[in-house]
Amino acid sequence: MIMFNKYNPKFMELAFENATKIVDDIPVCAIITKNNEIISLETNKKEKDNITISHAEILSIISANKKLNNWRLDDCDMYVTLEPCPMCAWAIINARIKNLYFSIYDTKYGAFGGAFNINQYSDFKTNVFGGFMEDKGKILLENYFKKIRQKNETTIR
Amino acid sequence: MIMFNKYNPKFMELAFENATKIVDDIPVCAIITKNNEIISLETNKKEKDNITISHAEILSIISANKKLNNWRLDDCDMYVTLEPCPMCAWAIINARIKNLYFSIYDTKYGAFGGAFNINQYSDFKTNVFGGFMEDKGKILLENYFKKIRQKNETTIR
Repeated sequence: MIMFNKYNPKFMELAFENATKIVDDIPVCAIITKNNEIISLETNKKEKDNITISHAEILSIISANKKLNNWRLDDCDMYVTLEPCPMCAWAIINARIKNLYFSIYDTKYGAFGGAFNINQYSDFKTNVFGGFMEDKGKILLENYFKKIRQKNETTIR
Repeated sequence: MIMFNKYNPKFMELAFENATKIVDDIPVCAIITKNNEIISLETNKKEKDNITISHAEILSIISANKKLNNWRLDDCDMYVTLEPCPMCAWAIINARIKNLYFSIYDTKYGAFGGAFNINQYSDFKTNVFGGFMEDKGKILLENYFKKIRQKNETTIR
């Protein structure tokens, strides 16, 4: 029996590879898959594009909508390097994403268990699995915020 | 004393004028203003564009970002004909919209008091005022769903 829509570590690894390349935005990458194939891959571009809503998850949903010519992403899964914020979480639910796999929990703004669970307000529930490659997720964000602090210190001098 | 950022009924009226023209999407219009001038005006295009996130509020934020070349919409207000869903509500907070004025509450998905209050999860709080021109808001949605039902009945025959 072929198991579709099962967690595949290669997609999370690929998400981390792409998130690591991000320079001037909080490093987050989101990948949407269907039948174990990549439909879209996007990174956070909020600062780069100066667009409030240009989070990795939102951009990957838009790309997938265009590719499949459908606002419903039935039987699609998402892999993301950080727990989604409430905006992205509701977009994921609205898009009917079946399974969501994320790395680290965000205890401040995470809307799938980290801060609160937005699934409770929806009839459709995305299946949510968090905590994949947490060491990698933690280091990625720590390095980013360390770099930001160093940059600010240099600017102050 | 000139009062900026105070509810101006002409913007809500204009939002209803534009929402009424929508044919194949749930009729919602969102207007962003700054210093009592319109920065952006967008309508719900989810079905038309086949993009999950193309709600009026999201599109009006993107337009305002581009116009002001800034992901921060400081000192901007939003007028919308329906209480925002959680996705749009968090986008509004993230954009730092100062005052939100909406017409009818959405008791199922409204994220600013209708179903729950998302402001509680954020440090930045958008000032939220609901219930403007509720009669108009109610009729607008009722007519839309009546039309949808009639269309479905015709299709079944």
